[in-house]
Amino acid sequence: MEDQELYKKLQGMMDRREYAALRLAFAEMNEVDIARFMETLPPSRAVLAFRTLPKEAELGVFAELDAETQQHIIGLITDKEIADIIEDLWVDDAVDMLEEMPANLVQRVLGNSSAETRTLINQFLMYPEDSAGSIMTVEYIELRKSITVEDAIKRIRRTGEDRETVYTCYVTNDTRILQGVVTVKDLLLAHDSDLIEDIMEPDVIAVATTATQEEAARLMAKYDLIALPVVDGENRLVGIVTVDDAVDVLREEATEDFERMAAMAPSEKPYLKTSVFALAKNRLPWLLILLVTSMLVGVVLSHYEPMYATFPLLVTFIPMLTGTGGNAGSQSSTMIIRGMALGEIKMGDFLKVLWKETRVCLLVGLGLALANFVRLAIMLPGNWLLSLVVCLSLVVAVFVGKTIGSMLPMLAKACRIDPALVAAPLITTIVDGLTLVVYFNIAIQVLPH
Amino acid sequence: MEDQELYKKLQGMMDRREYAALRLAFAEMNEVDIARFMETLPPSRAVLAFRTLPKEAELGVFAELDAETQQHIIGLITDKEIADIIEDLWVDDAVDMLEEMPANLVQRVLGNSSAETRTLINQFLMYPEDSAGSIMTVEYIELRKSITVEDAIKRIRRTGEDRETVYTCYVTNDTRILQGVVTVKDLLLAHDSDLIEDIMEPDVIAVATTATQEEAARLMAKYDLIALPVVDGENRLVGIVTVDDAVDVLREEATEDFERMAAMAPSEKPYLKTSVFALAKNRLPWLLILLVTSMLVGVVLSHYEPMYATFPLLVTFIPMLTGTGGNAGSQSSTMIIRGMALGEIKMGDFLKVLWKETRVCLLVGLGLALANFVRLAIMLPGNWLLSLVVCLSLVVAVFVGKTIGSMLPMLAKACRIDPALVAAPLITTIVDGLTLVVYFNIAIQVLPH
Repeated sequence: MEDQELYKKLQGMMDRREYAALRLAFAEMNEVDIARFMETLPPSRAVLAFRTLPKEAELGVFAELDAETQQHIIGLITDKEIADIIEDLWVDDAVDMLEEMPANLVQRVLGNSSAETRTLINQFLMYPEDSAGSIMTVEYIELRKSITVEDAIKRIRRTGEDRETVYTCYVTNDTRILQGVVTVKDLLLAHDSDLIEDIMEPDVIAVATTATQEEAARLMAKYDLIALPVVDGENRLVGIVTVDDAVDVLREEATEDFERMAAMAPSEKPYLKTSVFALAKNRLPWLLILLVTSMLVGVVLSHYEPMYATFPLLVTFIPMLTGTGGNAGSQSSTMIIRGMALGEIKMGDFLKVLWKETRVCLLVGLGLALANFVRLAIMLPGNWLLSLVVCLSLVVAVFVGKTIGSMLPMLAKACRIDPALVAAPLITTIVDGLTLVVYFNIAIQVLPH
Repeated sequence: MEDQELYKKLQGMMDRREYAALRLAFAEMNEVDIARFMETLPPSRAVLAFRTLPKEAELGVFAELDAETQQHIIGLITDKEIADIIEDLWVDDAVDMLEEMPANLVQRVLGNSSAETRTLINQFLMYPEDSAGSIMTVEYIELRKSITVEDAIKRIRRTGEDRETVYTCYVTNDTRILQGVVTVKDLLLAHDSDLIEDIMEPDVIAVATTATQEEAARLMAKYDLIALPVVDGENRLVGIVTVDDAVDVLREEATEDFERMAAMAPSEKPYLKTSVFALAKNRLPWLLILLVTSMLVGVVLSHYEPMYATFPLLVTFIPMLTGTGGNAGSQSSTMIIRGMALGEIKMGDFLKVLWKETRVCLLVGLGLALANFVRLAIMLPGNWLLSLVVCLSLVVAVFVGKTIGSMLPMLAKACRIDPALVAAPLITTIVDGLTLVVYFNIAIQVLPH
């Protein structure tokens, strides 16, 4: 709500062409907040707002804008302005922007950048999407191990302006092989005459350019790093990933898992910015697949038509049995998928997980069966055989749910399929079908017909 | 797998009492990895391993251990060793540890700490659990605005050893009111004679001690901060939250949402370390609630017994209709709940969301109905009336699912209930019931009986 009021005030200034006041208001605002405001404007006004920005805020705001607004601005500003922006952006931000742009704009941007920048950008564009290489930055501080702390600090003070982070410095040799890492804290706490090689940490945690961005982010979370070096096949330093990008990756990956686990294709943009058509396109395919699988469950069910034609009461327990089996399954699959995503559960834990789930499901199944037994004793007194059928089926439903819910994601991972794809919805339909088969077979055995 | 091999090697050294070799191996390892190894050992061996650690690694390893292993060690080491640890730990780590400990151990720890540390710890223990206050650290660098850059750097070099981060320094006045922030990068890039007040950023993004840890973490993610100041009611600086803790909070909150959305109480520990009994306790209550609601769906269903006794074929479509309604609902609820957790969807967007979901559900519902119509035309040719009933019900199921799935989480939030609590499983049962009522009522109207 506060945001909305501020936006109205700023829009009022634009309506009244009070650009000096607008510029002052921008100067007081955080660049992230200015970007969020500009994203609410139509293209021509966004460009106007962009040109009103104080010079020193331009770049920070631009890097924060969403792809759409960046394109609008690039499309409407002069070649000279484009050149200024592209040369000053961190390479990783520039690459992010270009990856989302239509080809004609990419041409225009690259055409206005220096040969050096163009080479760098082209090299970045070659890293696979979602790889550590694609989110790294090349603006970091490199030191040699033979220099003193005093010289290192001088070097940082001289060159730090163009570096995304100065807090972690990397020690390399003549062929850029990574030899150690030293933090600015280490430098400040050492004596001026100490040598870098004496204070550096030689065991550096690093990732390969080809590692996934998730692996990089997880390593940073595990070891509490604010920057992670990225190396090529020969252990040569080629870039670093900074913690703010790692945080974004972790949040995006979690969102993708949430979406996949609810049977959707992951969306590229925030919900409110995704078109109705794109939302429908993300949701329809899985619903169709699940429609077909649940039709199969219907086919299974039709085999027992004589049974429920004789005992129509049996039908009223179907929602409870399939619901409970599905819920028990989605509990297990969620814990296992999340555990694997966090690196807490590995493939080697397969038997441990199976044994644990078996015991949990014994406790949970018996608890539910007891509750159900009491309910049936009150509501349908004397119907002991029916009660036996339903309670037994309930225990089996929980067992089937928990077993399939925990094993299927691990099997998927073993087959290199994203475990989140075989989450709750798919498991639910499988469990539904199996539960119903068991239910009606028990009923056929137990009930007189 | 690599981990397991390393653990075996280290355990072998312990078996053969090769403590010198073990110490050397530890010296080469990262403290996080040593902690993970020690957590796999039985208590008496964990203490042994702890005492083998190189002196300088003791504290870092201890802070990384899980609560259980920390307790084992605290229970078995001398008072002198406890005092050393507690005085040197960052206050937030010490508080984390004490919060998990049984009362007698807490007494022993506090009894062995200095009066100053004790006061600080007691003050921290008063902040509500999961508040920004409870995860902040008090070891940060404070500067006055009247000093020069040179003096500031000297101050950092003198006092930085005891500060968790030196990279963001906070500018306060005599009454500790927060006046600005200056990064070490700013200091290094400024001239020695510049005054702090000239280079500091006066608009500081800060949180209150009473804000939730989630709010703090989200602010840091939004503004790409590596430290966030925490202030009391009078804007006095009382602590900072560092980015590594914020990353942990974001991951934990996502995990909690995954668990709540799959109808479980959030677990305190990683899956493999949670006891079978605790897992069952987290899962059973929601399964019981859902058991009861799905029984109610059964009761609803029993009202239509005459109908499906006449047309048993109707029963075979139940899994498809309830499944599709439930899946459509969980898609919507997942997008909305995640969007709200990321701060992308706010309460004011209620109507926008409703309008968007209505259009999505028109597209998706018609797509599914068409697929279903084709299938029925092939498999049950000539049954046009039945086909009409099923297709119509399918569109309604998607509509009910999407509407309830998107609205219920927002209504929950408006009532200050965690939206994740009303996610997929609860929505599924409601949608199941409504869909079946609609299905059989359409059938009663359309089919001749």
